[in-house]
Amino acid sequence: MTNMITFYDFPSKKDGVEAWNPNTWKTRLSLRYKGLPFKTVWVEYPDVESTLKAAGIPPTSQWPDGRPTYTLPAIVDPSTGAALADSLIIAEYLDKTYPGDKPLLIPSGTKALQTAYAEAVRASLGPLFQFLMGRTCETLLNPSSDEYFRRTRKEYMGMDIDALAPQGERVKEEWKNVEAGFGKIATWLKADEFAMGNTVSFADFVVAGFLEWCKNVWGEDSQQWKDVASWHDGRWGKLVRNLEVY
Amino acid sequence: MTNMITFYDFPSKKDGVEAWNPNTWKTRLSLRYKGLPFKTVWVEYPDVESTLKAAGIPPTSQWPDGRPTYTLPAIVDPSTGAALADSLIIAEYLDKTYPGDKPLLIPSGTKALQTAYAEAVRASLGPLFQFLMGRTCETLLNPSSDEYFRRTRKEYMGMDIDALAPQGERVKEEWKNVEAGFGKIATWLKADEFAMGNTVSFADFVVAGFLEWCKNVWGEDSQQWKDVASWHDGRWGKLVRNLEVY
Repeated sequence: MTNMITFYDFPSKKDGVEAWNPNTWKTRLSLRYKGLPFKTVWVEYPDVESTLKAAGIPPTSQWPDGRPTYTLPAIVDPSTGAALADSLIIAEYLDKTYPGDKPLLIPSGTKALQTAYAEAVRASLGPLFQFLMGRTCETLLNPSSDEYFRRTRKEYMGMDIDALAPQGERVKEEWKNVEAGFGKIATWLKADEFAMGNTVSFADFVVAGFLEWCKNVWGEDSQQWKDVASWHDGRWGKLVRNLEVY
Repeated sequence: MTNMITFYDFPSKKDGVEAWNPNTWKTRLSLRYKGLPFKTVWVEYPDVESTLKAAGIPPTSQWPDGRPTYTLPAIVDPSTGAALADSLIIAEYLDKTYPGDKPLLIPSGTKALQTAYAEAVRASLGPLFQFLMGRTCETLLNPSSDEYFRRTRKEYMGMDIDALAPQGERVKEEWKNVEAGFGKIATWLKADEFAMGNTVSFADFVVAGFLEWCKNVWGEDSQQWKDVASWHDGRWGKLVRNLEVY
């Protein structure tokens, strides 16, 4: 298997956690859905730029000061020489290079819709971040990533990650907002399991990425995960289980 | 043409304005795209509930106190007896009842994606509302709608519509935010004219509805409309022109 795809993902220090990052999960699920064998290279946050540069993977955007931003997920495919970052760009590449016999990750004509869906999901689940950011550092990240993540988010947001987490009375209130955020997605899906009806597509991996983040930060036995998995007739727990079969 | 569809829309007092409301425009464009003849019944805001009730059209949601909310767009189709409100529900009905030989308004499997797209467009164009709400009352609404619109929005938002409009230094800044909002949609569309590539769909009517609102509030010769129409390589002005051919 010398031609196996290399997939760059963030490691976790917690036992039993395969992966946790909502963005890299989109690519992990994309590769699995396609049935493509891959090997994971685990990269700590401070090493992302040097690792990607060394692999010839381009940046995905720019910092406000103009420096290039290197981000995961990223892949290198030795069969074609492709070296790419960004989950949507990777999904397009996989569709083109490995169309396979299943529906495409991004069915023809749906790219802008899938992009906007991803954006709308992220906006709806905004209230999740305050609960998950600090806990991610605490429970999942190794020391070098922990330090880097806290420092760069502080620069970016102007506040400590730990100060984000709601306290006291606000916990219940903000938890209701998380539920309402998932509820909004449920109103788009209606009775369908997947964004495109009976067919899995990239849009579902966006939601699943957030669910994997919740599940892995809190753990499967936590009350928080039990809540999320049970909301809206248990559809979120079911979605994670149904996508994990790939 | 006794079987012509009746389409309920909001009137305007301004010469040369065919229609202005971003929501009803989605249905106006849907009907035109389908090539279905229709007659417009113009309804002032205070008369929406009684008019729709009399026509047997159901409410679309609820006020916070539990009372039903009646909204436009709405249609009655005497060929089938259908009496419906909500632009997305109407689009689905038209696809089912009048599939025609063009692509559907909501192509198979894209309903949740189209719904989320509509939501993401509205969120991106949030900064537009502060510019348009007061001006809509002032330049477009007849007295009874003007009074009703101002009163109910004040109840809802807790502030006067006119206080929304940015003043002084903030005008330029907020206008940049409007441009950035359209810019976000442009990043989803990339080089494609329409959300689904070469094919018009409901998603495009969502954007076009907002564009028609801008155009009709400010007028085609205004600097504001010239700005909007020219942003992002003139794609917004072109979109309006290309959808007006139906």
